[in-house]
Amino acid sequence: MHTDLVAALDIGGTKIAGALVGGDGSLRVRAQRPTPAREGAEAVMGAVDEVLGELMASPLWSAARSVGIGSAGPVDAAAGTVSPVNVPGWRAFPLVERVHKTADGLPVALVGDGVAMTAAEHWLGAARGHDNALCLVVSTGVGGGLVLDGTPRPGPSGNAGHIGHISVDLDGELCPCGARGCVEGIASGPNIARRALENGWRPGPDGDVTAAAVAVAARAGDPVAIASYERAARALAAGIAATATLADLDIAVVGGGVAGAGDVLFAPLRRSLREYATLSYLRRLTVAPAVMGTDAGLVGAAAAAIALRS
Amino acid sequence: MHTDLVAALDIGGTKIAGALVGGDGSLRVRAQRPTPAREGAEAVMGAVDEVLGELMASPLWSAARSVGIGSAGPVDAAAGTVSPVNVPGWRAFPLVERVHKTADGLPVALVGDGVAMTAAEHWLGAARGHDNALCLVVSTGVGGGLVLDGTPRPGPSGNAGHIGHISVDLDGELCPCGARGCVEGIASGPNIARRALENGWRPGPDGDVTAAAVAVAARAGDPVAIASYERAARALAAGIAATATLADLDIAVVGGGVAGAGDVLFAPLRRSLREYATLSYLRRLTVAPAVMGTDAGLVGAAAAAIALRS
Repeated sequence: MHTDLVAALDIGGTKIAGALVGGDGSLRVRAQRPTPAREGAEAVMGAVDEVLGELMASPLWSAARSVGIGSAGPVDAAAGTVSPVNVPGWRAFPLVERVHKTADGLPVALVGDGVAMTAAEHWLGAARGHDNALCLVVSTGVGGGLVLDGTPRPGPSGNAGHIGHISVDLDGELCPCGARGCVEGIASGPNIARRALENGWRPGPDGDVTAAAVAVAARAGDPVAIASYERAARALAAGIAATATLADLDIAVVGGGVAGAGDVLFAPLRRSLREYATLSYLRRLTVAPAVMGTDAGLVGAAAAAIALRS
Repeated sequence: MHTDLVAALDIGGTKIAGALVGGDGSLRVRAQRPTPAREGAEAVMGAVDEVLGELMASPLWSAARSVGIGSAGPVDAAAGTVSPVNVPGWRAFPLVERVHKTADGLPVALVGDGVAMTAAEHWLGAARGHDNALCLVVSTGVGGGLVLDGTPRPGPSGNAGHIGHISVDLDGELCPCGARGCVEGIASGPNIARRALENGWRPGPDGDVTAAAVAVAARAGDPVAIASYERAARALAAGIAATATLADLDIAVVGGGVAGAGDVLFAPLRRSLREYATLSYLRRLTVAPAVMGTDAGLVGAAAAAIALRS
């Protein structure tokens, strides 16, 4: 006899990861495929089926009671469909129904990847013990999710907490989403690098022009690199403060590749947050780095699957 | 024998209103005093006690089971205290304890006035039947509250939904709260009037320089007056879109004196909202005028009191 497990899927533009997960959040069996993101809907679903097939081939599969999916967004949790920006072949793709069919008819929960990361940080990570939290992923894009009154709150569509596309600069640059001055347009990794390059920063001999390379330059004292991170931190601070003001939060947990810059990001972020989170009920608000790493998506998808069963 | 009632208090910088309220939201007995806002803590509390005393003198008082307070903010629902910006004598004033004592030991619920207005619009007004809503008061200040998953959500401090002090212009004008580019600093009535005056609008022979007078000029075609409302609408749209993006909302209900401008505000607001609320899950988002009028505070305080008993 096995104790109950859940199956978790983490679906992004680069890879599709799967795992069988225990009630303590431990990943027992793993599987992974690259996402054929430029191919058609069935090719992408084929990769999902291969990941699921590998999990189903495990002797532990018989203990799986439900499936949780964290997917690149936007998702539509009510309809059970996904339309990931970076997987053009999937538009209103009926992922819940298809996974349900492949996975022996198990019940399936779907949330956005920001919501999944948030559930993971709340369950076992930096937001543990906090009843009201925002968790952010700052990477190629900027996403997030909310914990309210002790529970992850995906919202009816499964996308709540999507801080990357709130405007903090209403007259600012046009964003690909159609709005202006979105947090993502100022604070994402590619935008940190772009701003540094525009203002005269030059990469080293390795030609690395990523935000990580800008962080190295900032740590070495390059004022343009420092300023680009400070600008990103300021946009994140305005967005986090807005979210905390609206949702009455205790903590913001920041993860994703850009958070890897450490103090280059977190020091100006904490300073700027004091400027924008000014109301008395936000004095308790703190910022912490995420701790769940690249498994956060799988652990959070598992949390969604466990919530489905309870 | 009476059916159960609740007592409701609506505490603002200008007046303190009270009522005994039925389970259907009907106001049975009313009392009111001006707020001695420039006097000391005990003078203000004296006015509250007079309002309560008038309610307690009613033969219906014996049917009152709890007291709900909606107060100008910030409030601290956990501590039971209030620190209204426009009542300087009250800082961390223990209002819940004091009302509890005056009101024969009945249980007391405290929420911010934006949360109270939201509870009223959700119970009996424009947000009725909507499970995920933002309600705003646009007046001398800008406040608000949230309904999430079918229930008003005041947050642990009782201030959630306070949209007036989120930044939509991170490099914008310094706000008295300490942040920059707050929604209130662009969209409140006094700021609509100030911007119109700065850009050359002149009041009529009555000398009325309020936002209502600017609205009259806008309806008559004055381009400066129209532009001032459009700017306010743009800031409100950016703030509403941010809130809807973060909280996954169906509807925004806009009330308060500035909403009295009607289409002068709502037409550009709806236009701007299409610009800022761009993500697919926000296609369902609508905007509606509030309908509960000046009794919203009392009805919402009553809703908080009823929630306390259930």
